[in-house]
Amino acid sequence: MRPSGRTTGQIRPVTITRQFTAHAEGSVLIEFGETKVICTASVEEGVPRFLKGEGKGWITAEYGMLPRSTHTRMRREASAGKQSGRTQEISRLIARALRAAVDLKALGENTITIDCDVIQADGGTRTASITGACVALVDALNYMRAKDIIQTNPLKHMIAAISVGIYKGEPVADLDYPEDSAAETDMNVVMTDTGKLIEVQGTAEEEPFSFDEMQQMMTMAKHAINELFDAQKAALN
Amino acid sequence: MRPSGRTTGQIRPVTITRQFTAHAEGSVLIEFGETKVICTASVEEGVPRFLKGEGKGWITAEYGMLPRSTHTRMRREASAGKQSGRTQEISRLIARALRAAVDLKALGENTITIDCDVIQADGGTRTASITGACVALVDALNYMRAKDIIQTNPLKHMIAAISVGIYKGEPVADLDYPEDSAAETDMNVVMTDTGKLIEVQGTAEEEPFSFDEMQQMMTMAKHAINELFDAQKAALN
Amino acid sequence: MRPSGRTTGQIRPVTITRQFTAHAEGSVLIEFGETKVICTASVEEGVPRFLKGEGKGWITAEYGMLPRSTHTRMRREASAGKQSGRTQEISRLIARALRAAVDLKALGENTITIDCDVIQADGGTRTASITGACVALVDALNYMRAKDIIQTNPLKHMIAAISVGIYKGEPVADLDYPEDSAAETDMNVVMTDTGKLIEVQGTAEEEPFSFDEMQQMMTMAKHAINELFDAQKAALN
Amino acid sequence: MRPSGRTTGQIRPVTITRQFTAHAEGSVLIEFGETKVICTASVEEGVPRFLKGEGKGWITAEYGMLPRSTHTRMRREASAGKQSGRTQEISRLIARALRAAVDLKALGENTITIDCDVIQADGGTRTASITGACVALVDALNYMRAKDIIQTNPLKHMIAAISVGIYKGEPVADLDYPEDSAAETDMNVVMTDTGKLIEVQGTAEEEPFSFDEMQQMMTMAKHAINELFDAQKAALN
Amino acid sequence: MRPSGRTTGQIRPVTITRQFTAHAEGSVLIEFGETKVICTASVEEGVPRFLKGEGKGWITAEYGMLPRSTHTRMRREASAGKQSGRTQEISRLIARALRAAVDLKALGENTITIDCDVIQADGGTRTASITGACVALVDALNYMRAKDIIQTNPLKHMIAAISVGIYKGEPVADLDYPEDSAAETDMNVVMTDTGKLIEVQGTAEEEPFSFDEMQQMMTMAKHAINELFDAQKAALN
Amino acid sequence: MRPSGRTTGQIRPVTITRQFTAHAEGSVLIEFGETKVICTASVEEGVPRFLKGEGKGWITAEYGMLPRSTHTRMRREASAGKQSGRTQEISRLIARALRAAVDLKALGENTITIDCDVIQADGGTRTASITGACVALVDALNYMRAKDIIQTNPLKHMIAAISVGIYKGEPVADLDYPEDSAAETDMNVVMTDTGKLIEVQGTAEEEPFSFDEMQQMMTMAKHAINELFDAQKAALN
Repeated sequence: MRPSGRTTGQIRPVTITRQFTAHAEGSVLIEFGETKVICTASVEEGVPRFLKGEGKGWITAEYGMLPRSTHTRMRREASAGKQSGRTQEISRLIARALRAAVDLKALGENTITIDCDVIQADGGTRTASITGACVALVDALNYMRAKDIIQTNPLKHMIAAISVGIYKGEPVADLDYPEDSAAETDMNVVMTDTGKLIEVQGTAEEEPFSFDEMQQMMTMAKHAINELFDAQKAALN
Repeated sequence: MRPSGRTTGQIRPVTITRQFTAHAEGSVLIEFGETKVICTASVEEGVPRFLKGEGKGWITAEYGMLPRSTHTRMRREASAGKQSGRTQEISRLIARALRAAVDLKALGENTITIDCDVIQADGGTRTASITGACVALVDALNYMRAKDIIQTNPLKHMIAAISVGIYKGEPVADLDYPEDSAAETDMNVVMTDTGKLIEVQGTAEEEPFSFDEMQQMMTMAKHAINELFDAQKAALN
Repeated sequence: MRPSGRTTGQIRPVTITRQFTAHAEGSVLIEFGETKVICTASVEEGVPRFLKGEGKGWITAEYGMLPRSTHTRMRREASAGKQSGRTQEISRLIARALRAAVDLKALGENTITIDCDVIQADGGTRTASITGACVALVDALNYMRAKDIIQTNPLKHMIAAISVGIYKGEPVADLDYPEDSAAETDMNVVMTDTGKLIEVQGTAEEEPFSFDEMQQMMTMAKHAINELFDAQKAALN
Repeated sequence: MRPSGRTTGQIRPVTITRQFTAHAEGSVLIEFGETKVICTASVEEGVPRFLKGEGKGWITAEYGMLPRSTHTRMRREASAGKQSGRTQEISRLIARALRAAVDLKALGENTITIDCDVIQADGGTRTASITGACVALVDALNYMRAKDIIQTNPLKHMIAAISVGIYKGEPVADLDYPEDSAAETDMNVVMTDTGKLIEVQGTAEEEPFSFDEMQQMMTMAKHAINELFDAQKAALN
Repeated sequence: MRPSGRTTGQIRPVTITRQFTAHAEGSVLIEFGETKVICTASVEEGVPRFLKGEGKGWITAEYGMLPRSTHTRMRREASAGKQSGRTQEISRLIARALRAAVDLKALGENTITIDCDVIQADGGTRTASITGACVALVDALNYMRAKDIIQTNPLKHMIAAISVGIYKGEPVADLDYPEDSAAETDMNVVMTDTGKLIEVQGTAEEEPFSFDEMQQMMTMAKHAINELFDAQKAALN
Repeated sequence: MRPSGRTTGQIRPVTITRQFTAHAEGSVLIEFGETKVICTASVEEGVPRFLKGEGKGWITAEYGMLPRSTHTRMRREASAGKQSGRTQEISRLIARALRAAVDLKALGENTITIDCDVIQADGGTRTASITGACVALVDALNYMRAKDIIQTNPLKHMIAAISVGIYKGEPVADLDYPEDSAAETDMNVVMTDTGKLIEVQGTAEEEPFSFDEMQQMMTMAKHAINELFDAQKAALN
C-alpha cells in the first residue's frame, strides 16, 4: 500500500555518520532513507542575556534547508531576508526537545547551538534533525567533559523523534515525501529512551482524526522510536 | 490546589460577545476568565496566488498581542520590524484549525482573514483565539450567504480549543497564567463538535510525560471543549 | 449639512473608561463616537541611552491600528515588517504632546510608554489617542506616587486634542470618517487646559486655506477642546 | 539678539541654482545661508497602482541627509536598513505640499518624483527643500510641455516654505541650527504665492505658546515667504 | 615553507563528486583539500523581468556558508535577516563568471540558478565554488538538451578558478586557511580552458604588491587552473 | 574612436575641491569629467568592537548614489530598506584601499569613516571615490594632528584609482558611461604613489581577455594614475 513498499510500521533505513565535518564539537550526518540532514553542535562560553548569572546553561537550535534540497528550488531564506514561519517553528521544536534532554544546571554557563541543515529532503526532516542532533549533542558534551568545561554529564536521557500519520486511512510510520504530501493526518512524536514523551504534535491535514486513531499512531511511534534509539546507540559505540 | 480555586477539570467562565466592532464581517470578543481576545473575520474577494484558478477559497490568520496585554510591556512587533517565532507559530495554528472546519471548495475564490488580537492575557490566548475565531467565522459565512457571495454553507463543523496540562503532578484544564508558567506539561487540543481531533500539541516544559498522563489530559480536554461548544452555540442563538 | 446631523462646532459624544485592561499602570478606553482607542501607560525604570545620567525621565508613544479597525482590512504592520510613515508620524506626535504636559525632571529616571491601539476607526484617531492617553498618564503618575517612585506630581497641565477642518466650505469640529475623507482642509490642535497651544497641524487636502479660515478653525478648536477637558475631569473624579 | 545678528524677521541669504546636476528633468541647489539642499524632479511615465486608470498624475517625494551633512556624522539610513520617522515625516510633507501646487488631472498619467538631499545642514532643511523643489518642479513641467508629454501647464501657483519660532521669547523667522535647537516653539509654514496656506505645523518644544504668539508667527511667516517667492521668480527668469 | 608542506605552486587534492544530491539538475560536491562545497544548478523556465522578451536566458548564483563550516560558528544569515557584503560579493562573482562561460542566446528564455553552499571551509571557498559550479552547470545543460529544452550546447568553454597570493614574501597557489589569513596579498583568478581571463581580483591585505609580483602570481594561477581543468574533465567522463 | 574624442590613454579633466562642505574633518568634491562625488572623512573616537583594546585605529567607508545621479532615477536604497550588492562591494573596496594607505597603529584607537556620495554619475564613480577620499583623508589626518589627537602622520603613501578597459578591441583609460556600458572588459586599478598595487579587479563583461591585454591595461593604468597623483598634490598645496 505504501509507495515505497514498506509495511505500515516500518521505518526507512537510518544511517548516522559522526564527525561528518571537521570544525564542530559535534557533527553528524543523519539519513532517514533519502532525507539527509547535517546536524552540528557548537559549544560557546556564556549564555543569552536573560539567563546571565543564573548558573545554568542553554541550548538553542536553528534549522535550514539548502535551496535545492527539495524537488523544486526554494528561495534562499538569507536572501529573502527572513525565515519562514515553518523554519522558525521547527527551530523552536528542535531546541525545546534537546533542552528537555539535558540538565541545564550541569551545563554551567555555556551555550550549545544546534544547527540542522537539510541537504536533501524526502519527508521527516524535523524528526531526522532531532534524532541526529541528539547524537551531535552527546559528542559536544563529551568534548566539554574532555576539556574540563563541565565535570558531570548533563545528559538526562537520549531523545529521538519520528513522524507517524494516517495515509489512505491507515496509520503509518516515518512518512516519506509522497506519503507526507497526501496524508490525512500528520503527527510528530519526540520521546525519551526512558519511554516518556517530550513533544506530540498531531495535525489533521484533510480529515479530523479520532481519539482511537491517535492511540494507534502513538503506539506505532513508540515502536519506531525504539529502533531509532538502537541506531543512535550503535553510532555512539 | 489550583491558584484560582478551580477543580482540576473546571474551565474559567467563558463570555462571547458578537459584533464587538463595527466594520468586520465577523467580530467577536471572547473572554476565558481574564484572557480577552478580539477575533475578527474579514471577507475579501480573490485568493492568494498559489490557489488562483483552482476554484476554491482560503482562510488565513494573524495573531497579535497588544504591547501591554501582559504583566510587563512587550515590545511592539510592528516597531521591532518582525513577528516572533511564537506569534507566527500561533498564527499558523489558528489558520490551520479554521481551514479544517470549512469546505474550501464551497467558499468559492474568496479569502477570509482571521485576526486575533489579545487585549489582555492570562494564559490560554491561543485556545481562546481559536474558539472565538470560529464564532466570527460563522458570522462572516452568514454575511457571505446573505450577500449571495456563496450559495451553500461551507462550515463542516464547529471547532473549539482548550489547553490542558500537568500542574503540580495533576492534570488540569484551561490553565491560567500562574499555572501555565509553572506547569510541567502543556497541551493544546483543537476538536470538532463531532468529537474528532484537529490538532494536538503537547510539550514537556520541565518533565517528560507518560503515555498515561497524555491519555488523562486528552480525556479532560474532551470534556472541557464540550463546554466551549455550548458557549459558542449560546452566543450564536 | 454634516452627514451626522451635528452642528458645525459640535463634537461627538465622548466616553472615557478607566482601568479598561488589568495590567497597565494606566489603561483607558476612549470613544469619540464610533472611534475607539485603547490607551495604556506603562511605567518602566530607566531611560533611553541618550538621557542616561541626566536625572530626568522620558515619555514615548506608539500608535497602532488593529487590521480590521477600518472599513476594509489593512495589512498588519507587524507582518509587513515595518510601520507606515503615517503610523510613525502619529506616534511621534502623541509622544511630543504628552512630554509637553510633564516636568520630565520631576519624573526621575523613569520612562512612561504610551500605547494607543485603535480598535475601531471613524476619523479623529490621533486626537482621541492624545486625549485618552493623557488620562492614562495621570493614572500612571498616581501609581508612581502611591508606590513612592516619585515624590511630587510631574503633571504641569492636562492636554487634549481635537480635529477641525473645512468641510463643504464651512469650518467644522471633530470630523468623522465621511467628513475627514472629503474635507478641503484638516487641522489637528493640541491644547493645554491653561489655554495654550502644544501643537497645531493644518493641511490643505484639496484647496489652500486662508489666514481667516485658519483663525476660525482655531477658535472652534478651542471651544471643542474645552469640552474634552470636562470629559477628562469627569472621568478622573 | 539672534546668534547670527539678524533682525527678528530677517531671513538668511537665499541662493537658487538651476540645472545643478545634468540628468534630472529639474535639478536645483537651494541654499538658505549654510543650509544646502539638492532638489531634483524626475519625470516617469505611469502612476502608482492605486491611481491606475483614473486619468490623473502623481507627485511623490523623498528626503535624505548625507551622513556628514550634520555636525556629527549620522548613521546612513540605507545602511541602517530603514528611514527614521523624521525622514518619512518630512518626505510626506514635501510631497503633500507639492501636490497642492499642481492640477494632477492636467499632469496626465505621469509621476514626478522629488528628491531632496541635504548636503549641508544648518536648520530649516525641510522648508528649503520645499522652496527649492518647487523650482525643480517648474523645470520638470516645462520639460514635459517641451516634449509634448502634457499640453497645458498643471501648475496652479508657486509654493514656498519658511520656519518661524519663538526664540528667547521673541518670534523670529528662518531659524538656523543654533536657534532651532534652543527655540521654545518651532513652526513650519507652507504658502502659495496667492497668499493662501498649504500647511502649518507648529510645535511647542519647551513651553506651550499662546494664540497671540501663533498670530505673530503667522504674520512673520507671510512676509518671509514673500521674499522666497521673489527669489524663486528671479531664478526662473 | 607552507604550513601544509606543499611546494609554492602545488594545489591541494581536488575531488569532484557528481550527482551528490538527488533533486537538482546538476549537483556536485567539490573538495579542495579540506574545503568542501555543494554546488547545485537548478533549471527554471522563464527569465527575470529585465530580460523578458529578449530571447535569451540568464544565470544567477547564490553563495552561502553553513554556520559551523568555520572554526567558530558564524551567525546564520537567514536568521540575521541579511546577507553580508562578502556573501553578496561572492554570489555576484560566481554568477558573472558562469555567465561568461555560456552563450545566453542559446539558452533560450530559461534561468539557471547556481547555489554554492560551503559545508566545510579551509580557504579558497569562492574558487572551489566556481570550479565545482561549472561542472554542475554542464550537467544541467546536458539535462536541458536531453529534455529538448534547448537544441544546441550553450557552453562556450569550461571555466575554473584558483586563488594565488604572496605568503611570507613568496607567490603560492591555492591558499588554505592558515595561509589565507596571513597572506600579504590575495588574488583570485578565473580562466577559460582556452587560456583567457574572465576575472582577476587582487588585493593587498598588508603590503602593496609590485607589478612584478602580479606577473608571477598570474603565471602560477595559469598552471594551477590547468590542473583544475583536468580534474573537471576527469569528473565529466 | 572614443565617443568623447579622447585618445586611448587620455583621462578626463580632474577637479578636486577641498572643504566642499562645512562640518566634516575632510570634505572633497572630486570631478572626473561629468562624474561628481562628494567624499567626506569623519573622525570619531573609539573603534569597532572587534578592535577594542588592540591599540590601533580603523577606517571604514560607505558609498551611495543620489537617486537621480543617473540617467534614469534609481530607487533610493534607504527607502528600499537595503543596500544593493554593488553598493556594498564598492564600499568594501574603498575602505580596503584606504586602510592600505594608513598605518593603523599610528592612528590610535580612532575611527575614520569615509562617505562617498555620487551626485552625478558618468562612469568611474568608484575610482573617483577612492581618489577623492584619499584627499579627504589627508585633511582629516591633518585635523587630528592639529588637535593633538595623533602625534605622527599615519599616512604611508597617497593612493589613487583609475578604470581601464577594452573598448572596441582597444585598451582605453578612464571610461565614461557610454564606453563603460559597451566595454568588453573593465578593470579597476588602485595604486600607491610609490608605484605599487593595492587592488586590481578585472572583469570580462562580454569576451574573455588575454594575458597580453591585461598587461597593456595595467601599463595604461599606471600612467593614468600618475596624473591623478599630480592632481591630488596640486589640490593639497
